[in-house]
Amino acid sequence: MSLPETSELSALSELKQFLGCSTPSVWVEKALEEQDILLIDHAHCEKKAASTAMQLMFRHPTRPDLLTKMSRLAKEELIHFEQVCRIMRQRGVAYDHLDAGRYVGGMRQLVRTHEPAKLMDTLIIGAFVEARSCERFELLIPHLDSALAKFYASLLKSEARHYQDYLSLAKNVALEEGGTGLEDYKHRIALVRDLEVTLICTEDALFRFHSGVPPITKSLPSKVAV
Amino acid sequence: MSLPETSELSALSELKQFLGCSTPSVWVEKALEEQDILLIDHAHCEKKAASTAMQLMFRHPTRPDLLTKMSRLAKEELIHFEQVCRIMRQRGVAYDHLDAGRYVGGMRQLVRTHEPAKLMDTLIIGAFVEARSCERFELLIPHLDSALAKFYASLLKSEARHYQDYLSLAKNVALEEGGTGLEDYKHRIALVRDLEVTLICTEDALFRFHSGVPPITKSLPSKVAV
Repeated sequence: MSLPETSELSALSELKQFLGCSTPSVWVEKALEEQDILLIDHAHCEKKAASTAMQLMFRHPTRPDLLTKMSRLAKEELIHFEQVCRIMRQRGVAYDHLDAGRYVGGMRQLVRTHEPAKLMDTLIIGAFVEARSCERFELLIPHLDSALAKFYASLLKSEARHYQDYLSLAKNVALEEGGTGLEDYKHRIALVRDLEVTLICTEDALFRFHSGVPPITKSLPSKVAV
Repeated sequence: MSLPETSELSALSELKQFLGCSTPSVWVEKALEEQDILLIDHAHCEKKAASTAMQLMFRHPTRPDLLTKMSRLAKEELIHFEQVCRIMRQRGVAYDHLDAGRYVGGMRQLVRTHEPAKLMDTLIIGAFVEARSCERFELLIPHLDSALAKFYASLLKSEARHYQDYLSLAKNVALEEGGTGLEDYKHRIALVRDLEVTLICTEDALFRFHSGVPPITKSLPSKVAV
């Protein structure tokens, strides 16, 4: 695996500062135990990311910058979806329905219903999802087998760019608004950040790629040797 | 505009034989009068084509050939959507909601509800939509301004490939079925072909990219010179 370049390291460090907390280590431990669910949920995440980007394109066809960035993002997520499916086939992991976790739906409850506030909020949430994905890929890589580690490392770069794309598009919406637009943008980021921290750092019964802290499972008493 | 290569000409000729009828010349006349609606509806068609391809990918992640072909198709349709939007902006044509025509919905009524018949039917309909688009682009090109003619000519090649992709995927589903699979495939093509001819060759009040024969408008008596 090639070492990340300096510019990539600085992008990674920036997005980790953007997030309000690091992923708790207990999530990483659980993810390593549940690699099949991790892969299936990852496939679903790529699929949803492509769909969200396409919906944004189709809802805002008069914004050239959004069209270009979301089209590129949707195309990349489609490729990632194909790649995850290929890895799952190689490992005999069946693609299956999975109930959605609470993460994205939880944040989406903050989305205002009027435009352009709705667009700005959706883009900010997109930035958090991409940033968290990136942070988790980096945490997982050292513990995975080389094939999966290589694949996740290859995703890091594009996910970091997606985070930047979402954030710059949200900022542009704010700048277009003028007046208190930029303050509103900062306020919304702070609001989403706080909720995202709660979703990541509180107990979450359903293990998923973006889930919170797995519940403590009581360890069974070890078998007494006869 | 560069002349099409021999292989492209043969692909075009093949897909025109696949269609049960040529587009009536009155549709071409109407399309040239309604170029704004043509562009807006074209944008909607690209958007729907990308969405359909993505839905097929997400519904059938265990079919590697379908995944690869539909992912490429979705990516190309997203690029076409961006391109149509750019041309519309350049021409001051506003992207707007348009009621869907009867064409795709009409054919979709033939789709069986059980798998893999549902998949085969959907793929066959996809082949007809792509083939008809291709045939209409070719008919329009000689009458359009050079910018639009060049754009439509650039689409011809990929739409012809999409037609082939859809058809070969449908045939693969039939071959997997074995037994009477191939007969069923030919029968379904004939069934969709007949309905497609009806949708193209009968009167259709709503002008769209895939609409039928425009209603005859009574010509007003010419002004009598005083």
